[in-house]
Amino acid sequence: MPSEPRALSGETKIFAILGNPIAQVKSPQLFNAAFASRGIDAVMIPINVGDNALELAISLFRSSPNFHGLVITVPHKVTAATHVESLGPRASRIGAVNAIRKRNDGCLMGEIFDGVGFTAGFAAANISLSGKRILVLGAGGAGRAVVDAIADYGPSEICIFDKVVSKAKDIREIIASRVKNTSVVIGSPSGADFDVVINCTPVGMNEADPLPIDINTVSTSALVADIIMKPAITALLREAALKGCRIHPGLPMLEAQIELLIDFFEGLPKQ
Amino acid sequence: MPSEPRALSGETKIFAILGNPIAQVKSPQLFNAAFASRGIDAVMIPINVGDNALELAISLFRSSPNFHGLVITVPHKVTAATHVESLGPRASRIGAVNAIRKRNDGCLMGEIFDGVGFTAGFAAANISLSGKRILVLGAGGAGRAVVDAIADYGPSEICIFDKVVSKAKDIREIIASRVKNTSVVIGSPSGADFDVVINCTPVGMNEADPLPIDINTVSTSALVADIIMKPAITALLREAALKGCRIHPGLPMLEAQIELLIDFFEGLPKQ
Repeated sequence: MPSEPRALSGETKIFAILGNPIAQVKSPQLFNAAFASRGIDAVMIPINVGDNALELAISLFRSSPNFHGLVITVPHKVTAATHVESLGPRASRIGAVNAIRKRNDGCLMGEIFDGVGFTAGFAAANISLSGKRILVLGAGGAGRAVVDAIADYGPSEICIFDKVVSKAKDIREIIASRVKNTSVVIGSPSGADFDVVINCTPVGMNEADPLPIDINTVSTSALVADIIMKPAITALLREAALKGCRIHPGLPMLEAQIELLIDFFEGLPKQ
Repeated sequence: MPSEPRALSGETKIFAILGNPIAQVKSPQLFNAAFASRGIDAVMIPINVGDNALELAISLFRSSPNFHGLVITVPHKVTAATHVESLGPRASRIGAVNAIRKRNDGCLMGEIFDGVGFTAGFAAANISLSGKRILVLGAGGAGRAVVDAIADYGPSEICIFDKVVSKAKDIREIIASRVKNTSVVIGSPSGADFDVVINCTPVGMNEADPLPIDINTVSTSALVADIIMKPAITALLREAALKGCRIHPGLPMLEAQIELLIDFFEGLPKQ
């Protein structure tokens, strides 16, 4: 059980997660439990921010002295990277952020922790990527981060699909230019011959969504992962489990990055 | 003891108090306790908003669907009234708001509860205003609201002081035009001959502040009230108590309006 959050006061530090939709996010629960257990007088609130209001929200964050950090989620991770003065090394490489803090000079700095969170979640579940053929669905902010991170674990192939082909090509080029011994290619939403299938699209957040991939094409020996956190078990994961596939849900990606994010917000070098 | 706040989630309704400074505000404590005791999944957070960011904050509030209400405090009560489409009857009369909500048509509506909160606090403490000579220091948003509200309790005289004389004159005219049997005049920061002295300026929030009035001019039989909430006992109240005056602190004004504010935010007619 998470610790009880402490009562807020006028001195409480404010953190917010910006996204659209917002009801599904888990950052308030996880951060507030972490703040409580660390004895930090801070609160993480959800703010539902549409495309037109993202810059507004970042401007308010910038100008409010008691507003200490932002978590950025779908669909703003790429756009938010254009509203900050500096980017950490991963965010700089892939052009997306999921966290923004204020530097001592008042400038905003963004970095992305989804990739390191995702691979940490895999490691904790004893899932190896070395030599594997991996299909990543979705090349938005989180998809880019996942592709960037898994490339460091020695897979034989990373195949990227996005319905916007140019997005898949962009991240393919970024990754292909820096990894050796891994084939990085553009693919289709078909799971044939892949050892690992990772859904990084938002398809599955809504009840009425179709599956992000034709489940009939996925091998029963494949591992199927989803980064969606609500529902905890998406239709994709449910169908994959019914076929006999091993599955991996979305929450570990976030759980594994909470401590990293708090260190980032506090300006600690360990990131 | 206030109830423990419930853990926040992505579905929690957001409320914020906007002010500058912000550390002293008590709305987070009082509202979050009230939300908890009513079983409302909502949180009140403090946002430190300078003059240049007030419109920004109201715009973000306007555009974020899960952002349900604003409490406005010093120094923004008058300016905020110019950023909403409609005003309740008291706010309309005095040109200041301390609460903003969204109407069903999406327009913003502001109202002020400081005056009714203040007089309710006096009533709870069995302080009568009928026939009394009252000095009000400060004609900002809260000062206007207090003058407007106490005028309905039959004092023989209301004397208003503000270092910006035009502000005192503005509210004097508004009140003088609607009350009978009460003399409404412009005065100076001198307590001579007054039965009740009410500080509605922010002078006293900081340790280094001077007193808002020459305490030597205040009669020992006078009641001295302050609307500042932190420190709970301001230097003015301390000096007045040392003289033997009865004193009345700032918190009751807010405590008495919490339920009214929650009803207002929920769009209930009872206001």
